[in-house]
Amino acid sequence: MKSKLIRLASLPVGIPQEANFNLGFEELPAIKAGELLLKTLYISVDPYLRAKMAGGHKPPLVAGDIMYSRAVAEVVASAAADFKPGDKVLGFLEWRDYLIHNGEGLTRLDDSGLPLSSYLSVLGSTGLSAYFALTDIGKPKPCETLVVSGAAGAVGSIAGQIGKLMGCRVIGIAGSNEKVDWMKSQLGFDAGIDYKTTPDTGAAVSSLCPDGIDIYFDNVGGAISDAVINRMNDYGRVVVCGSIANYNDTASGTGMPLLPLVVYKKLLVQGFLIADYKARFAEGIGRLQQWIAAGQLQYAETIMDGFDRLPEAFIGLFEGKNEGKMIVRV
Amino acid sequence: MKSKLIRLASLPVGIPQEANFNLGFEELPAIKAGELLLKTLYISVDPYLRAKMAGGHKPPLVAGDIMYSRAVAEVVASAAADFKPGDKVLGFLEWRDYLIHNGEGLTRLDDSGLPLSSYLSVLGSTGLSAYFALTDIGKPKPCETLVVSGAAGAVGSIAGQIGKLMGCRVIGIAGSNEKVDWMKSQLGFDAGIDYKTTPDTGAAVSSLCPDGIDIYFDNVGGAISDAVINRMNDYGRVVVCGSIANYNDTASGTGMPLLPLVVYKKLLVQGFLIADYKARFAEGIGRLQQWIAAGQLQYAETIMDGFDRLPEAFIGLFEGKNEGKMIVRV
Repeated sequence: MKSKLIRLASLPVGIPQEANFNLGFEELPAIKAGELLLKTLYISVDPYLRAKMAGGHKPPLVAGDIMYSRAVAEVVASAAADFKPGDKVLGFLEWRDYLIHNGEGLTRLDDSGLPLSSYLSVLGSTGLSAYFALTDIGKPKPCETLVVSGAAGAVGSIAGQIGKLMGCRVIGIAGSNEKVDWMKSQLGFDAGIDYKTTPDTGAAVSSLCPDGIDIYFDNVGGAISDAVINRMNDYGRVVVCGSIANYNDTASGTGMPLLPLVVYKKLLVQGFLIADYKARFAEGIGRLQQWIAAGQLQYAETIMDGFDRLPEAFIGLFEGKNEGKMIVRV
Repeated sequence: MKSKLIRLASLPVGIPQEANFNLGFEELPAIKAGELLLKTLYISVDPYLRAKMAGGHKPPLVAGDIMYSRAVAEVVASAAADFKPGDKVLGFLEWRDYLIHNGEGLTRLDDSGLPLSSYLSVLGSTGLSAYFALTDIGKPKPCETLVVSGAAGAVGSIAGQIGKLMGCRVIGIAGSNEKVDWMKSQLGFDAGIDYKTTPDTGAAVSSLCPDGIDIYFDNVGGAISDAVINRMNDYGRVVVCGSIANYNDTASGTGMPLLPLVVYKKLLVQGFLIADYKARFAEGIGRLQQWIAAGQLQYAETIMDGFDRLPEAFIGLFEGKNEGKMIVRV
């Protein structure tokens, strides 16, 4: 059978363009013993993929590579003992509509009572990143002030809500008035800043955080982060989850020197790898499911339909087109 | 009796100058009940005092303030129950050759078998900073690579040696060939870099750290730190003890964006306040004394003689005039 696939045609310079990708076709052979034929259902597009193209996130993506990311698929045919047709699986999969797989690294998905796409959003690595990074690194305490950047995104929108559940005052920074309204009315954030229409983000942060900032959950880096980190309280914690403002940098870039602030304010600035929390994923998923079931945690997905639109969805991340997790339905 | 004192006459712009200080005189009254007359013996000059003048380190020092820092003094006369003439005390003291004090916050010094000045160096906050920050934040493990900046200074020279005692490969960065020789021959560092004569610090770090860097003990900030942090291994720890390169900044300055590296490499970047380790000072001092007694830890002091030379000694910190701790003997 014929399958579609998407390759990185060339490394992007600055924000990725459709021309950096190409759609190809491949004839799939029959499956052999131990193999599965998978039909891809949902594919996750994520900012870290851009960092792979810049070489910062390892292993890098180079021109000619078939793109890959987390995806949910259905087993169509199986010559492997562990899987049967109809099974839904999660794994790092190449961007193909159908593919042959040896089953390694795939997780069979139970029925969580939530749509399958949730395994790429709130019950997947973005929800788990929000949960573990905020609780383990940010260590929120009641009455502390938490600022979240990229707050309408997949991780930020969950992190801010968990902050609220833990008793923090939560201020979100995002790129449109609609997003700010959504964070306040739907997610329960205390306040929000639309950085695109706010002339002085720092002044806005100051006025919304009269007691300073105890935790900064950062998804963006760049000037927004400079403005926030400048206003941290002593012993503040900066959870560095992403740095989307820097992934498209074409020059080496310049920024506010961060180290003096780390000294002056005794800050903790920390990155993390969500895979390192693997042993605790069940705990995290359980907690997130409880909150969802209790109506205390909203999760949003921006779902684009059509395999061919994967590049468009990915590029949309850098244009702020998503509320919550950006996912392509194949 | 007449006492001398030193005020901050004006806030320095860039590197402090002698003209930023002035020497004054004051008639001391007789001591009253509860008071002590102290004769200052040794005064510590430290880079963080410059940060106080820039407002970054709180509380700030402003023009007209009498300078103050850690000092060792002798009780000359006492009208307080807790102290008797001849007692040696440690405390934050104004820069005066004689002073009247109410005893609050003073620590009576036992005979450690080391010179009294050691309470301002290896047994004082600089030695304790090296010990606690390296072990608690840096968490050195055998065979890891530790890079120390400001490595010939008060904290760096101790931190590097403790790294060696814990089995690390230790590379020091300092500002002269003499200092590099001293670190290698006297302190047992594996290698050193004289950043003043090395055209490309980053390349030198790369060639001396073929396995990357696991711990960076930073006393300087600025371009040296950028070069080192760029070469950290995944899960590297950056212990931010000082940022002397930035204390004299007159503009807001620019630097390498640090946050993307924190994401890519899952780094920990942390500052600290040595006073927060107060409950464990006895442990730290005990450990440092053991190592000194066993001949495993060298400590150096650069002692300038004469109260009037306090400004010169302080300014000397920014000209790299010290090996080990800079102290003025009154």
